[in-house]
Amino acid sequence: MPKLWNDTIEAHRHAVRDAILDAAASLVDEHGLASVTMSQIATQTGIGRATLYKYFPDVEAILLAWHERQVTAHLEQLAEVRERAGDATQRLAAVLEAYALMAHEHHGTPLAALLHRGTHMARARQHLSNFVRDLVTEGAQAGELREDVPAQELANYCLHALAAASSLPSKAAVRRLVMVTLAGLRQT
Amino acid sequence: MPKLWNDTIEAHRHAVRDAILDAAASLVDEHGLASVTMSQIATQTGIGRATLYKYFPDVEAILLAWHERQVTAHLEQLAEVRERAGDATQRLAAVLEAYALMAHEHHGTPLAALLHRGTHMARARQHLSNFVRDLVTEGAQAGELREDVPAQELANYCLHALAAASSLPSKAAVRRLVMVTLAGLRQT
Repeated sequence: MPKLWNDTIEAHRHAVRDAILDAAASLVDEHGLASVTMSQIATQTGIGRATLYKYFPDVEAILLAWHERQVTAHLEQLAEVRERAGDATQRLAAVLEAYALMAHEHHGTPLAALLHRGTHMARARQHLSNFVRDLVTEGAQAGELREDVPAQELANYCLHALAAASSLPSKAAVRRLVMVTLAGLRQT
Repeated sequence: MPKLWNDTIEAHRHAVRDAILDAAASLVDEHGLASVTMSQIATQTGIGRATLYKYFPDVEAILLAWHERQVTAHLEQLAEVRERAGDATQRLAAVLEAYALMAHEHHGTPLAALLHRGTHMARARQHLSNFVRDLVTEGAQAGELREDVPAQELANYCLHALAAASSLPSKAAVRRLVMVTLAGLRQT
């Protein structure tokens, strides 16, 4: 088959997959996790059940794929935030605030607890931990952040501390949490 | 029945219950959670199965009761640590270090994940959060800790940050984590 034809097939498969993930997410949002079925997802996507089963074996696999897409989008957003901000400490502060606001908005639900057990999360946590570690290293090299604790430990401190954002009542409280967490990183 | 008799019965029931919890914990420790049965626990405790079922309906109930006893003992230890240390900040530092070392030694296992979903944990977390909040309030009143963030939010920041201790490789790393976490609380 010519390359163009393969590309078109690939793009089509990708579009169907995205549509399935969107349909599943909106059904869960509307009806709750427990009541969503493969039939409903097929109907909402506008495809047959047999086609749906060619893409995914069950609802949980669809939700995990949807969550993996969300997590990837969040990591891309954090990379963009890093590019926008000024010096090393400002970049770190901007990234930590963006991360804490994501934790605040999206988590703390039973669905989140289920999805966060997925294996894609171990990879994402490692990626995020290294991403923050590199920002901390830059800040320490610029003389703004403490150097008496390994950067990887400081990154894990940050991510654990900011997980408190998921149970905070307001964005103002999330910003205070980011300020306190950053204060722990300062040169003493 | 005379009061002394009731007291004796009560003490006996308490001793049997404690022996059951000890037996279950040591069996889980030795063979893993999945393979422990009610029969094994009865044999190890030195009582009949029928007697065991008068105390607990199943293995999970025994493990939850055991964990509740552990958590209570940990909270009592933290209260003792508070009494031993000097000024407000020293008391807070001693309590946070003791808590982080407990998290480091006892957690991060699949059993911990199961037990921490128990309802007794919600009470224990609330108790611990209030306990740390009061220490933070004392420190702020003494002019040593920041006053620009509510003490309850600072307490939750501490407990989330110190949860990182469960995946740290050494006690030295745990002590660095406590130092960094405390730095976030300082008057700026």
